[in-house]
Amino acid sequence: MKTDELAREIAADIGTDKVTTAPEDLVCYAYDCSIYTSKPDIVVRAESKLDIARVLKIANNKKVPVIARGAATSNCGAVIPTTGGIILDMLGMDKIIEIDEDNFIVVCEPGVVTAVLQAEVEKRGLFYPPDPQGLNMSTIGGNVATGAGGPRAVKYGTTRDYVLSLETIIADGSILRTGGKFVKDVSGYNLTQLLVGSEGTLGVFTEIGVKLLPLPEARKTVLCTFASLDDASIAVTEILRSKVIPSMLELLDKTSVQLIQNYMDAGYPTDAEAILLIEVDGSKADVESQVVTVKNVCMSCRAGEIRIAGTRAEEESIWAGRKSGFAALSAYRPVVIPEDATVPRSRLPEMIRQVQAIAKKYDMLLPTFGHAGDGNAHPHICINPGTAELEKAKKIKDEIYREALKLGGTITGEHGVGMVKRHLAKLQHGDKALELMAGIKKAFDPNNILNPGKAF
Amino acid sequence: MKTDELAREIAADIGTDKVTTAPEDLVCYAYDCSIYTSKPDIVVRAESKLDIARVLKIANNKKVPVIARGAATSNCGAVIPTTGGIILDMLGMDKIIEIDEDNFIVVCEPGVVTAVLQAEVEKRGLFYPPDPQGLNMSTIGGNVATGAGGPRAVKYGTTRDYVLSLETIIADGSILRTGGKFVKDVSGYNLTQLLVGSEGTLGVFTEIGVKLLPLPEARKTVLCTFASLDDASIAVTEILRSKVIPSMLELLDKTSVQLIQNYMDAGYPTDAEAILLIEVDGSKADVESQVVTVKNVCMSCRAGEIRIAGTRAEEESIWAGRKSGFAALSAYRPVVIPEDATVPRSRLPEMIRQVQAIAKKYDMLLPTFGHAGDGNAHPHICINPGTAELEKAKKIKDEIYREALKLGGTITGEHGVGMVKRHLAKLQHGDKALELMAGIKKAFDPNNILNPGKAF
Repeated sequence: MKTDELAREIAADIGTDKVTTAPEDLVCYAYDCSIYTSKPDIVVRAESKLDIARVLKIANNKKVPVIARGAATSNCGAVIPTTGGIILDMLGMDKIIEIDEDNFIVVCEPGVVTAVLQAEVEKRGLFYPPDPQGLNMSTIGGNVATGAGGPRAVKYGTTRDYVLSLETIIADGSILRTGGKFVKDVSGYNLTQLLVGSEGTLGVFTEIGVKLLPLPEARKTVLCTFASLDDASIAVTEILRSKVIPSMLELLDKTSVQLIQNYMDAGYPTDAEAILLIEVDGSKADVESQVVTVKNVCMSCRAGEIRIAGTRAEEESIWAGRKSGFAALSAYRPVVIPEDATVPRSRLPEMIRQVQAIAKKYDMLLPTFGHAGDGNAHPHICINPGTAELEKAKKIKDEIYREALKLGGTITGEHGVGMVKRHLAKLQHGDKALELMAGIKKAFDPNNILNPGKAF
Repeated sequence: MKTDELAREIAADIGTDKVTTAPEDLVCYAYDCSIYTSKPDIVVRAESKLDIARVLKIANNKKVPVIARGAATSNCGAVIPTTGGIILDMLGMDKIIEIDEDNFIVVCEPGVVTAVLQAEVEKRGLFYPPDPQGLNMSTIGGNVATGAGGPRAVKYGTTRDYVLSLETIIADGSILRTGGKFVKDVSGYNLTQLLVGSEGTLGVFTEIGVKLLPLPEARKTVLCTFASLDDASIAVTEILRSKVIPSMLELLDKTSVQLIQNYMDAGYPTDAEAILLIEVDGSKADVESQVVTVKNVCMSCRAGEIRIAGTRAEEESIWAGRKSGFAALSAYRPVVIPEDATVPRSRLPEMIRQVQAIAKKYDMLLPTFGHAGDGNAHPHICINPGTAELEKAKKIKDEIYREALKLGGTITGEHGVGMVKRHLAKLQHGDKALELMAGIKKAFDPNNILNPGKAF
């Protein structure tokens, strides 16, 4: 069947205004935040679950790929069509359906921007902790599809830990409802948790229920410098052993700090080997006592400077530096590829040293910052496009992940596999696990139409 | 193939002393804590993962059922053979392999008793929160297989939230390793979370890695009485809205309280319509302020008596009542069937009222206590065996779960489906979800040898 015919069939079914094959539209949907591009054949802007069910039914009959796409902030090519097909734009499905203040649950459509959801619940004294760094753009649907994490995971876990229910349309167009308004549920296999992080390969979410917490009363930020990575890492463990679980516990290496300070003045000391940024939250009294504990622990771990943010402005300035990391690196090289090696927390210094060794070997900077509390390092490969650096980048990427696996880690803590890490997934999981994943995929999507060529 | 031949083949492969078909042994393995019994054909006492791999390989070739069995504390018949076969006794695999104090992780064999694991990590200032009420007997392997919960779930979640890695032997005898020493991992489908709660139908665990938290410094218990279920339920929501998340938040109805007080003196007032038992934990300062908040909230929700345990002994006495609930009911009727209806937290009063209506209809007591913070009610059907009460019990069970589903709940919050709730699983999930579960089962266990007739 020709593309035009297929587009006409879909348009006849759900409405002409929702379907486009115009070249200028297709180009816009060829991108995500990775370095890869590839055009779809058709774009459908879904406005309802019925639209999605109908598109899937047609596509499944014709065996045409369908890729659900939120804000496309993936840096792994998760929403790049690998073999053409239909992009299902989910941004029109952006309603918050219900904020259930009695049960601390939000039910929403997948196109809701994460930051919007957070702001809405915070108005009511509630709290949706997951904080992927793209949250001002990224959607809940995308967060669930990738199992997105963020700095707060050290205390609060990732998106996975908040998803209670899903309404999903699977490949044949039928609706699957899993979970509900309860945190305890052991009835049958946990399809909800299987769908979280499945990168759009098992179904398209149409409703998402997430749990909320009470919004903490207070928070406070501490910045500590260390003369060695090991001291910083020991401090991380000792902070947690002191019974303080920070709401964020970030580590920046020297290169990152210097590039950030070149870009903006976050007030970071540029001579330290590592900086820890620590946020604690809780009741006012508890925050005060946690800050004292953190300070004492860091002193005993040979911290250099220990700076406790006294005002909200000071606190924001400290975090602005960390948040501008990606922009700072982009000012150094126009193409920045964030990697996502995650290792047991105690192996983080080794991981960072390996990254530094790889940087030296390839004569490139690999600034690394990330979530020290959960061993999630983000080394960044910074390149000039159209140069030999791209080839180097591929080799560097592979070396970083092979080291992460040697250290007992995973190839992705929070970014996902997408199209760029599939060869590494095989290394991590082995043939048997991949065979099982393929069996699961087959049960959900026998014609392999849902985001083919992704995830594993 | 005859049973004797099969037993000889297994014995030749793994050692004669580990295999038995003696009738007196088979009788001992015909039970769990449900009201059902059925004998296996062979019992194998596994001592190593190699034993398990070999048994599975042989059983898979011969298409003979294999049921892994820990302490058999299931009340759903989860480890009762439905069609004979081999019981794999896992209690010999009870080694704690590693307590990783840097990464807050324990790796252990599945036969470790949950309370033993908790005690071992608490010696080191660490904390494994999941607390299924059978934890003095039940094993980690069984807890993972059922996704076991407990009172602390309201603050700390269930077993599911702690499992980071699994080594699992699947039906064909091959070893599957999933997850690792990291809390963030989005590489491929989350097989670890799929295996949790799969009731032994997808594989046999041989190593389990769970995450730990720092052990809280202090805790305190509050008992509150209420003249109405609604007031008690409103208090539950208001406590959580006051930003206090109790480590336990239990509700007992009047019938339960009276039966408990008949059995032992826990000091519970017997005239209240409902009692809340509330434990808060955290730093010493934080615990004090949480107790004040809880007290104020309960007063504003028209609590009758508010009792704050002043000593450890007083605290223990309050919880002893709750813990002896099952025994107290057994003193009233020798057979007690604990049900496990879980509804959205705010629907709990309705659920309990429905249970009371059903009790009236069948002229039976259905004492209900459970985890109010997460909507997990445990109505108990108490019967005299060998009487017409057994038939009544079956009808009551079905009515309870149909009401739970009407209220947007699940048929099991923490006990599992086992063999007793399969017909209800269909009601909850619908045909499509069950078809997908069957597809997953087929990918893992094409010959359906692993704990057949369970879970869904």
